[in-house]
Amino acid sequence: MTRTIEQAVDGLVVKALKTWGMIRPGERVLIGASGGKDSAVMARDLALKKRRGRLDAELVGLHIRNDFSPGALSERLRAEYADWGIPLVTIDVAVEGRLKPGRKMNCYWCSTQRRTELIRYAMAEGFTAVALGHHLDDALETLFMNMMGKGELSTMPPVVSYRKYPLRVIRPLYLVEERQIVELAESLGLTASTCTCGYNDRSERDRIRDRVEALTGGSSRAKRNLLESLRHVNAEYLPS
Amino acid sequence: MTRTIEQAVDGLVVKALKTWGMIRPGERVLIGASGGKDSAVMARDLALKKRRGRLDAELVGLHIRNDFSPGALSERLRAEYADWGIPLVTIDVAVEGRLKPGRKMNCYWCSTQRRTELIRYAMAEGFTAVALGHHLDDALETLFMNMMGKGELSTMPPVVSYRKYPLRVIRPLYLVEERQIVELAESLGLTASTCTCGYNDRSERDRIRDRVEALTGGSSRAKRNLLESLRHVNAEYLPS
Repeated sequence: MTRTIEQAVDGLVVKALKTWGMIRPGERVLIGASGGKDSAVMARDLALKKRRGRLDAELVGLHIRNDFSPGALSERLRAEYADWGIPLVTIDVAVEGRLKPGRKMNCYWCSTQRRTELIRYAMAEGFTAVALGHHLDDALETLFMNMMGKGELSTMPPVVSYRKYPLRVIRPLYLVEERQIVELAESLGLTASTCTCGYNDRSERDRIRDRVEALTGGSSRAKRNLLESLRHVNAEYLPS
Repeated sequence: MTRTIEQAVDGLVVKALKTWGMIRPGERVLIGASGGKDSAVMARDLALKKRRGRLDAELVGLHIRNDFSPGALSERLRAEYADWGIPLVTIDVAVEGRLKPGRKMNCYWCSTQRRTELIRYAMAEGFTAVALGHHLDDALETLFMNMMGKGELSTMPPVVSYRKYPLRVIRPLYLVEERQIVELAESLGLTASTCTCGYNDRSERDRIRDRVEALTGGSSRAKRNLLESLRHVNAEYLPS
């Protein structure tokens, strides 16, 4: 029997949840629901696991609606979340309105604002985990931006624990490649949108994405090994 | 005043020698003299430092001549070594003759054989450091071969100390880019050869070289930051 794309993605989510102990029994998990394909695929996978009794957690989606791209989460996708049994909360944040005079909007700043609101809401409402839809390619892109731009070996980790707060940020899609997410979203007919705000400055991330593709020749094995190598740092064979 | 390529390379060698404490005062250093541009540029730089009283070391070159490419170190390059005041020893090793029946010759095996002979000679003759001509691009290529091929974060380090023997392998060109070595070798009219043996199987290394160029866009800053990032491993922002 051929393994479906759904089974492949689900297997990788199971592996990530186990490897990094992402979700504790009975935990209240807040899902960052951007309106994009990544968080939609993640939300659906977690919801189906819960429905099948393979995940003991309370799942709630939070969509941070901004003032310049208010339709980011479509009505059809809202209906999907309802189908999956995930209550969706929407809060309005004037991301653009928060910009200091003279400052230009950019993706990094916008996502930081949304992240802050997710965490604020989670803490106020008693959630102990915030699930974000970042995937393997996101982790590799951040890795190389940090290595080549800052001279630092670091990336977004699968789990971030805060010292001061009883809260973790978790990334259940950490081992899933973007192409797998795209394939699954298409096969499900998920009507997820990509951000189409007028401030699009994804050029740097797009460029680094192309470069990672060139480095790996698009090979899944090479990408997985790159990520895996971050767990096998052989300090004896690195410059001190 | 513009900095010449010679000054740039020399500055990077000084920095590497200092950063990793590569050569101890009065130390006997055996230089691996392959006949190529890398070891020639390294030998010349160390010899000039010594002549100017900026390096306290005894320098001897060792050329491992093999049975299938006996002219790898040209007569003209031998004359250069003599000019620099570096005695050259040549020993013959039947690399091809050592191959077990049915095994194919390859660059990795050949270089391992030569390395072994260098170390054997160094120990027998009382040298405490063996200097190899590997440069920054070599280190990055090995890094990505190890990351993508083995899932391990490691590369050739600037200094390798052996636990059992009073011997270190050092790489004084560790911070120098290959393009700088090529430029310097050309400006000096160094008649170094590249290996032209009939077994050329550099295809994998050549492919990885192209891929590192694609990743970095050929940017020196990006390459230097990649190497530097290996010295700044932020474990908190890596998958555990």
